[in-house]
Amino acid sequence: MPKVTPQQIENLLREYQLDHDGHITIEALGNKSARARFRVGKQHLRPGDTVSGPTLMALADVAMYAALLGEIGLVPLAVTSSLNINFLRKPAQKDVIGEAKLLKVGKRLAVGEITLFSDGDPEPVAHVTCTYSIPPR
Amino acid sequence: MPKVTPQQIENLLREYQLDHDGHITIEALGNKSARARFRVGKQHLRPGDTVSGPTLMALADVAMYAALLGEIGLVPLAVTSSLNINFLRKPAQKDVIGEAKLLKVGKRLAVGEITLFSDGDPEPVAHVTCTYSIPPR
Amino acid sequence: MPKVTPQQIENLLREYQLDHDGHITIEALGNKSARARFRVGKQHLRPGDTVSGPTLMALADVAMYAALLGEIGLVPLAVTSSLNINFLRKPAQKDVIGEAKLLKVGKRLAVGEITLFSDGDPEPVAHVTCTYSIPPR
Amino acid sequence: MPKVTPQQIENLLREYQLDHDGHITIEALGNKSARARFRVGKQHLRPGDTVSGPTLMALADVAMYAALLGEIGLVPLAVTSSLNINFLRKPAQKDVIGEAKLLKVGKRLAVGEITLFSDGDPEPVAHVTCTYSIPPR
Repeated sequence: MPKVTPQQIENLLREYQLDHDGHITIEALGNKSARARFRVGKQHLRPGDTVSGPTLMALADVAMYAALLGEIGLVPLAVTSSLNINFLRKPAQKDVIGEAKLLKVGKRLAVGEITLFSDGDPEPVAHVTCTYSIPPR
Repeated sequence: MPKVTPQQIENLLREYQLDHDGHITIEALGNKSARARFRVGKQHLRPGDTVSGPTLMALADVAMYAALLGEIGLVPLAVTSSLNINFLRKPAQKDVIGEAKLLKVGKRLAVGEITLFSDGDPEPVAHVTCTYSIPPR
Repeated sequence: MPKVTPQQIENLLREYQLDHDGHITIEALGNKSARARFRVGKQHLRPGDTVSGPTLMALADVAMYAALLGEIGLVPLAVTSSLNINFLRKPAQKDVIGEAKLLKVGKRLAVGEITLFSDGDPEPVAHVTCTYSIPPR
Repeated sequence: MPKVTPQQIENLLREYQLDHDGHITIEALGNKSARARFRVGKQHLRPGDTVSGPTLMALADVAMYAALLGEIGLVPLAVTSSLNINFLRKPAQKDVIGEAKLLKVGKRLAVGEITLFSDGDPEPVAHVTCTYSIPPR
């Protein structure tokens, strides 16, 4: 069971200005997992009507953060220590969905993977692995 | 349906000296996926009876290669262009299993992820993403 | 000698909406290298007056792209295929400088590394490796 | 000034079976840097007389470890937490040299980059970034 609700995470994201002006929402929290959505606007597109790389990276980071907070509770000082992204397919001009799964939650480090999809398309547009540093509690 | 059999891949691995003297075997090929095993011997251990990092990386690379050959056929000149590994838990003194899944197979690049397990343990010991460069056909 | 000028690259960045509304500028092009600046505004900060992760990633990507265009000329269709970032220190509330160096420019793939600094501080705030896929010419 | 000598590091590598049966030696320690050599034998080659990927990864890991021990002293329990490698050029049938440089040494994490060369060739064969987890002291 996640220790927090999607709403609590969204509140924290807003407070920490990590929600991209309300464009990122948390759709679901599961067992060591989370699903986040980036509501794509014109400002997130690039020529060819594709979604920008920084938009994808921001969504992946937040989806991972949500999964982590669901597991350890509202620990605002956890920070990303590394992020690795493979761009797989050109995203459509649609919302992007990030499915995060925690691979390890240690005392000091958490590692997860995030798969990104154009809304409604089963083929991933990008795959991310991400490491968070967890402050001493 | 994979285009080749595990046996054909093992033959190619042996010819190209990628099977670590017979310690790596291909257990299964699926739809854009493969499972490989590293039969761990004393020479692959480190103090604390854990499996060495290069052993894990070698297995991940071969598992990904097997999944790729299952998808595109026996293309011996495909080469690893990048590999990213996160070490998650100390492996036990057991065989290591690599489960590879292809995320993208393009004309020139293939990307996959490989999760590594100590035989019989559901928690992963490492997670790898890997890119292969595919020669023009 | 770079094949293009910083001004030509900035024009292309603007056309392709990669200049973050004029916040990214190209300060120098060298032998397989480039220096880019992110003029940080309030919208790029996070609580604690630090620069956001997506801002750092965007700068790294553009610095690498500039170095690549300096080497191969104005090839607008080159696209990022992977990016790996390690966050090293909390950036100050200052402009961020990205120093890109190409490690390889092949026919199909280019690889580079980018070190990011808070303007005026010699200790890096982040380090990035980045791969570009180059279209057939 | 490094806190230890190359000989002390080689002794520790041998004790922890990280020296690949004496094939890895530490040639120099500098300010947050180290140079290591892999004396390549037949068993490290692949068809085409190139050096195997796991050999390159093992050298990079040890070069980084040597640079770290030079900075923090003989801390045997530091462990690799992640490693990212880009293969750049086919290595020649020669020794491989690893030049490691620390990017950050924090209390809990160290990050470095390692550039690998075929002995005598100025163009790198691979580039690695690597993270070590440092135990509480």
